[in-house]
Amino acid sequence: MRVKFQHSLEELKEQLLVMAGLAEHSVQRAVEGYSSRDVSVCELVMQSERAINRLEREIDQRAVDLLAMEQPMAVDLRFILAVLRINVDLERVGDQAVNIAERGQEMMLLPEAELPVDIPRLASLAEAMVRLALQSFIEGDADLAQSVLLLDDQVDEMNRATFDALSALIQQTPEITPQALSALIVAKNLERVGDHATNIAEDVIFWVKGADVRHGIRLVDEAEARVA
Amino acid sequence: MRVKFQHSLEELKEQLLVMAGLAEHSVQRAVEGYSSRDVSVCELVMQSERAINRLEREIDQRAVDLLAMEQPMAVDLRFILAVLRINVDLERVGDQAVNIAERGQEMMLLPEAELPVDIPRLASLAEAMVRLALQSFIEGDADLAQSVLLLDDQVDEMNRATFDALSALIQQTPEITPQALSALIVAKNLERVGDHATNIAEDVIFWVKGADVRHGIRLVDEAEARVA
Repeated sequence: MRVKFQHSLEELKEQLLVMAGLAEHSVQRAVEGYSSRDVSVCELVMQSERAINRLEREIDQRAVDLLAMEQPMAVDLRFILAVLRINVDLERVGDQAVNIAERGQEMMLLPEAELPVDIPRLASLAEAMVRLALQSFIEGDADLAQSVLLLDDQVDEMNRATFDALSALIQQTPEITPQALSALIVAKNLERVGDHATNIAEDVIFWVKGADVRHGIRLVDEAEARVA
Repeated sequence: MRVKFQHSLEELKEQLLVMAGLAEHSVQRAVEGYSSRDVSVCELVMQSERAINRLEREIDQRAVDLLAMEQPMAVDLRFILAVLRINVDLERVGDQAVNIAERGQEMMLLPEAELPVDIPRLASLAEAMVRLALQSFIEGDADLAQSVLLLDDQVDEMNRATFDALSALIQQTPEITPQALSALIVAKNLERVGDHATNIAEDVIFWVKGADVRHGIRLVDEAEARVA
């Protein structure tokens, strides 16, 4: 019975990793489609959204069934709850990819503009966060998950700089406003991908250590955070 | 034992409603602070974020404890899972309020600008969605929850119009770019409040009917959605 249950947990984990692969790939494609103004790549993102949504429902159902039938305790309970949460975050990573692809489709209609914002670099950072968060999930490594939380500040910082640069540029050359606003929204979408990676990392820590690291109460500096 | 368990579920529900009240109030205050350029009101929002975060952790812990100790089945299991999810969404509604209040603090430093965007109206709509979602939770009313999903399209539509209007305005009067970008971000924040209300409504339907309504597969028009 317990062997079968452990096997079910493994299957759930594998299915979540497939989901993660789809979501990650979707962001990559969306940024590629947006950056290279390639409408067919943007359309691929829309198509894969349906697969992501279907898989999210499957994983959710499977996890809820396991909770109902196996009534797991302690670390297994926390694992299934973490899967439920990570699943939602991955689906929303997919939503961000769709938003970026939609901006890409709008951009095709406008002349190209040189903008002071490195979307591919911001995307690399956000994607690295997602990958690191998933690696920490695969390995059940809370320290690795912890490192994701630090990267989030970098993404936020890059985004603030992007905002200021675009705001200044628009005032000099108002005719590129639509392109600049679009880039601003894409940067925000990528910031949200980073936020989802942070959520995933926090869920991994909750699963492994049973501790809640949200809102800056982190394991390594809990006392400090309380003082601050 | 079961009487005690039902009492615990009631307590959990009440605590979640306190959380909802804090989150809702926080959005109202943030919009008030932003619109009236009142720095002290914006600061109140920052302060209440801490209370919201603390309460989120408490509710989360209580819900996980109930799952571990009571091993609930069927509708009770779904109720606790719904509480866990709604709790996360309410905390993020609070985050959006903080973002709006931060924009409010930045605005104090800039001259006032007449903008073609009705932030208070957009806020009313987003807040109405949250209230309706919570009412559906209090009454366990899936039909009422369903009506929230329809309002979401209105918020998205208003947001698209806001984007176009601000984009056009910036091109005419580039000197008000910072104020216009700020309003654009606040409109996006309010759209996300509406998204969270939609998530809450979907969780209520999941709890009451055991059905997954995400991704447009809705109870009332499931066949239609599959065709579309």
